[in-house]
Amino acid sequence: MKTSHYKIVLIGSGNVATQLGLALKEAKLTIIQVYSKHKSSSSSLAKILNCESTNSPEKINTTADIYIIAVNDDAVAEVVKKLQLSDKIVVHTSGSVEMNILKTSSKNFGVFYPLQTFSKNKIIKFNSIPICLEANNKNTLKALQLLGNSISNDVQIINSEQRKFIHLAAVFACNFTNHFYSIASDILESQKLSLDILKPLIEETANKIKTNSPSKIQTGPAIRGDKKTMDNHLKLLANKDYKNIYKLISKSIINSKSV
Amino acid sequence: MKTSHYKIVLIGSGNVATQLGLALKEAKLTIIQVYSKHKSSSSSLAKILNCESTNSPEKINTTADIYIIAVNDDAVAEVVKKLQLSDKIVVHTSGSVEMNILKTSSKNFGVFYPLQTFSKNKIIKFNSIPICLEANNKNTLKALQLLGNSISNDVQIINSEQRKFIHLAAVFACNFTNHFYSIASDILESQKLSLDILKPLIEETANKIKTNSPSKIQTGPAIRGDKKTMDNHLKLLANKDYKNIYKLISKSIINSKSV
Repeated sequence: MKTSHYKIVLIGSGNVATQLGLALKEAKLTIIQVYSKHKSSSSSLAKILNCESTNSPEKINTTADIYIIAVNDDAVAEVVKKLQLSDKIVVHTSGSVEMNILKTSSKNFGVFYPLQTFSKNKIIKFNSIPICLEANNKNTLKALQLLGNSISNDVQIINSEQRKFIHLAAVFACNFTNHFYSIASDILESQKLSLDILKPLIEETANKIKTNSPSKIQTGPAIRGDKKTMDNHLKLLANKDYKNIYKLISKSIINSKSV
Repeated sequence: MKTSHYKIVLIGSGNVATQLGLALKEAKLTIIQVYSKHKSSSSSLAKILNCESTNSPEKINTTADIYIIAVNDDAVAEVVKKLQLSDKIVVHTSGSVEMNILKTSSKNFGVFYPLQTFSKNKIIKFNSIPICLEANNKNTLKALQLLGNSISNDVQIINSEQRKFIHLAAVFACNFTNHFYSIASDILESQKLSLDILKPLIEETANKIKTNSPSKIQTGPAIRGDKKTMDNHLKLLANKDYKNIYKLISKSIINSKSV
């Protein structure tokens, strides 16, 4: 079957469901329904995707080919309980949830994990986003590959064990990094300065690793062993959490040097 | 005096000296000499900038208008000792070094701090880089503003106290962030995966804060209070430093929520 003939039900109406729905629509796939327990967000997403919506699990359309569960990690199990889809393909989009959580919902299931951070209002180009796939059998995997290839040039088969580590690495590279942007913003605000002044630096720091191994381009007082500057910085930090973070990360940078 | 008539001596031949020299040359300013104790790098930079070079402090050309010290933070004091420039303008380019370290070198001195991370081989467009200026008198500040405006659209007057905090914030947003890219890379390598898979995510994480306050877009298990995922992640982390970092940053994210 051609992907353009796939009929899809989207379960969820948050950031991932919205962006994935838009990408699938753009790729000319047919989304027949949006299901979510949140009435207003599901109906507004359905409007954008030009399909119907429901908030009743018993009204989920059972004639689709693929069911994509794009809800919060914590909510996947609850949604799965409501699905009895025989041999339809059921996938979730989560980095951290086991694939086997889906096994009660259908004979054919898998994971369709787009490795990106999504906002509701910012349209994301999917073509360079890695899509990490896993499935419980070959035919399902094949169908998911076709689905993935319809929106991205970077579809990869990733098993559950690898996916766990990818998700962990993403926490460091995305969630924790964003917290450092917050801390930087806090430090600047204490001097009535805006984070704007650091934006070109933040952009270039992210750009640099496109062509360099991050450990080889580490800069700053810790890697130089510049104790004087580090002591001065610790004196400037009033927040106890930030002080402890400064010490621990500096120590980790120094340790990474000796490896 | 027009900036195009400024004669400049560049002291240093590392990443900052190279990129700043290229930007000044591009802006049609006249660099008359490169001084550095490192013979080969100063002569190769002088070749690129089409000027002379020297490795002897006593041969530093004393007829220039502005002397830009772009050496490692730790080396500024040593270089200053060698300079006796009467009323010529002397600046350093460091975020963390006091302005007053320059006072023995001339009556007119200041700071010309381009807030960016520089590599030797990657040409940096200066036009959007914030240039943080400070000077010990008005005329010097005016001259530095002209110099800054010749290469950047974002020239700001920043006093020593503010500059300390900017540098500290930059350590979090650049140096520490890069270390997290390293940790992510390490975690992936343990599964024979490459950091490539995270690059679109890293780019988007840096992009997102251009239009959002980072504290308002924090995502991940810590901000959700998802203890199960956090416990699973801690079990996956074999490296003790990484484990401690994971705990501390998660705690800090949780604490930031209650503020």
